[in-house]
Amino acid sequence: MSDPVRVALLGCGTVGSEVVRRLIEDSEELAARVGAPIEIAGIAVRRPDKHPELPQHLLTADAGELVESDVDVVVELIGGIDPVRGWLLTALRKGKSVVTGNKALLSEYGAELSEAADASGADLYYEAAVAGAIPLLRPLRESLAGDRIMRVMGIVNGTTNFILSAMDSTGAGYAETLDEATRLGYAEADPSADVDGYDAAAKAAILASLAFHSRVTAADVHREGIAGINASDIAAAKLFNRTVKLLAICERVVADDGTESVSARVHPVMIPRSHQLAGVGGAFNAVYVEAEAAGELMFYGQGAGGAPTASAVLGDLVAAARNRVAGGRGPRESAHAALPVRPMGQTPTRYHVSLDVADRPGVLAQIAQAFAVHDVSIAAVRQRDRLSTASLVIVTHLAPDAALRATVEQIGKLDVVREVVSVMRVEGEDS
Amino acid sequence: MSDPVRVALLGCGTVGSEVVRRLIEDSEELAARVGAPIEIAGIAVRRPDKHPELPQHLLTADAGELVESDVDVVVELIGGIDPVRGWLLTALRKGKSVVTGNKALLSEYGAELSEAADASGADLYYEAAVAGAIPLLRPLRESLAGDRIMRVMGIVNGTTNFILSAMDSTGAGYAETLDEATRLGYAEADPSADVDGYDAAAKAAILASLAFHSRVTAADVHREGIAGINASDIAAAKLFNRTVKLLAICERVVADDGTESVSARVHPVMIPRSHQLAGVGGAFNAVYVEAEAAGELMFYGQGAGGAPTASAVLGDLVAAARNRVAGGRGPRESAHAALPVRPMGQTPTRYHVSLDVADRPGVLAQIAQAFAVHDVSIAAVRQRDRLSTASLVIVTHLAPDAALRATVEQIGKLDVVREVVSVMRVEGEDS
Repeated sequence: MSDPVRVALLGCGTVGSEVVRRLIEDSEELAARVGAPIEIAGIAVRRPDKHPELPQHLLTADAGELVESDVDVVVELIGGIDPVRGWLLTALRKGKSVVTGNKALLSEYGAELSEAADASGADLYYEAAVAGAIPLLRPLRESLAGDRIMRVMGIVNGTTNFILSAMDSTGAGYAETLDEATRLGYAEADPSADVDGYDAAAKAAILASLAFHSRVTAADVHREGIAGINASDIAAAKLFNRTVKLLAICERVVADDGTESVSARVHPVMIPRSHQLAGVGGAFNAVYVEAEAAGELMFYGQGAGGAPTASAVLGDLVAAARNRVAGGRGPRESAHAALPVRPMGQTPTRYHVSLDVADRPGVLAQIAQAFAVHDVSIAAVRQRDRLSTASLVIVTHLAPDAALRATVEQIGKLDVVREVVSVMRVEGEDS
Repeated sequence: MSDPVRVALLGCGTVGSEVVRRLIEDSEELAARVGAPIEIAGIAVRRPDKHPELPQHLLTADAGELVESDVDVVVELIGGIDPVRGWLLTALRKGKSVVTGNKALLSEYGAELSEAADASGADLYYEAAVAGAIPLLRPLRESLAGDRIMRVMGIVNGTTNFILSAMDSTGAGYAETLDEATRLGYAEADPSADVDGYDAAAKAAILASLAFHSRVTAADVHREGIAGINASDIAAAKLFNRTVKLLAICERVVADDGTESVSARVHPVMIPRSHQLAGVGGAFNAVYVEAEAAGELMFYGQGAGGAPTASAVLGDLVAAARNRVAGGRGPRESAHAALPVRPMGQTPTRYHVSLDVADRPGVLAQIAQAFAVHDVSIAAVRQRDRLSTASLVIVTHLAPDAALRATVEQIGKLDVVREVVSVMRVEGEDS
């Protein structure tokens, strides 16, 4: 057996303490898998005196010094950009491998980190950054390395999925359901990172970068949260046998002339209840991948939590440690395709529009005309008679998002339209 | 860019020709990912004159000579054990990496092949051997390397899944449905490898070996096919909101004293219709994994077909080629845990037994007594009144399979039991 692989752990909250526990309890088993013992060289925490449960001689408040010390791998579980970015760059530049679950950092400075890793030949692994325990980044990066990924679409935020699942089953409104989610511990006291889609957008940036061998940052991702969704949106979806999910969608868009670009976006969508992603309830995550040769794939599992996330971190740590022992390194990041990011307005989407309209002849003609003016083709129309109004639902074919938005805006101004009840994009069915 | 990585292709049927097509059409893209061009050094086929569609100068009928020539990676898509085994051993011993989808060979001689790979430092990859396009072996081997896998359970044979799905939706019998499957091309003219569970058993051996770091061969896998399933089994399942699937099940069995063993088996089971695997229809594959830290995971996708399988082969080929270019190698096979395989009789299972019994007092008492004698605990009983008989369904708690079998045998001999209508194991629900 080789010399121990020395690991520095930065941060020791829910995930970190689970990582420490397993490194200690399963040390023999892990050593057999790596070909060398994994040794914890130190654990950096803000307040060492607040961690009586951890081996005291390993604790330090000086993360920077720990990174510079004699360690082979740095596992970072602090989160946020500064000062973590500096520590990880230092580690990588000195040839120490890095395992992190820091989606904020990766979605903004991923390119900088992977260049530093490439320059020194160190590994940079971050399976825990997207979809917790689900093995997703390694399959995208390695298993599908010989294929052409066309699309990655998934539920990557448990909080919003919990809220939307609950709204779907109870019929309750957004505010009320968010309160319930907060009470149950599924939403943070300040829920913005989740409900406004920031968390999912960071993950979409990471997924799009890997899937399309291009550089996509969080700022490139079109982002809409779930705060605007109300009970009538959910009801409108149900009428058409659909359900509402907040999805991260990363697509390779191929123009008529063959030029390619990447669309990366996070927004609520209606999907058919028969779709694989529709049945994913509660705090689970699931990601659907479409590749040219492989066809449709789906990955499902727990997207958060101490033990599940620790599983992803430990898988990466074993890989990084194995590479130390056996020589070699994991696959480099590749951004060779360098596809541009397509603005949301030019991204082809489909809309589901529910309207409360006047009940008189010619209404549909006027509305259809508004779609025609913007060159948007209608896939289906359903009119429901009510006492004094006719509720009208229109589902479009694919059209540029900007044209769809402009159409909805124009329709909202028509005299015959009393109210635009719900507007939502549709995914997961043939157009 | 580095020197080309030279690849020998053995066999060129549906999968092989798709591999060749993509290697040629996507050569630039693949070279960017590998860091060097992938060059086809030769293609061995039985009858070179029968392949006008392939580049003629690459064809040879002499696979042995091609393997011995100046190539870095051997991709084997012929299948079967001899003479392939010798060629692949030669390649590995000479330090050439091997990519194969040969489940028969791997499930019997996997240990020999991986020892040869370890001795020379070559890579041995075989993602295509189980569940076609689904990235499954790499996640088990690498992503979950820091976790403890407790269970791998899945639909790994498309033919039997197609037949059982069809029987479930039409209510038709086995023979009739098999005929239909054959007519549609979902079953081979000689369907034995599929319907008798040989194909799934080979895959179970590969999965169990990887998941539990132990050596499990196809001969160690308990195997029952679907030929004995009839319409009344399917109907019995429906009554309890279950469906019938042929599953490969690999479990880590932990005895009361803490000693561990592996159970690997292929047989039909009833699972709840609400279970993730129940909705997997037609020729799709899906594998459910339970790990100590990660919890429940599911992988879903196409289990067969030229393009999907080629995706798995190409992913492995890119990995092997990258390792050539960058140095290092993929993770070694590890059988360090060396867990023994538990005989089926000692494996804990649950039974679902439907009986046609005499309609008179005391019947249930007699039958319950038979279970008690074998120390089998009953989880649920349902009696249905009919005109002159009472149909009785009993679902047990977990018990050793041998005790369950013995109980059913004894019950079959009771005077009060007119017929044992259906006996099937139950999985996927709390006991």
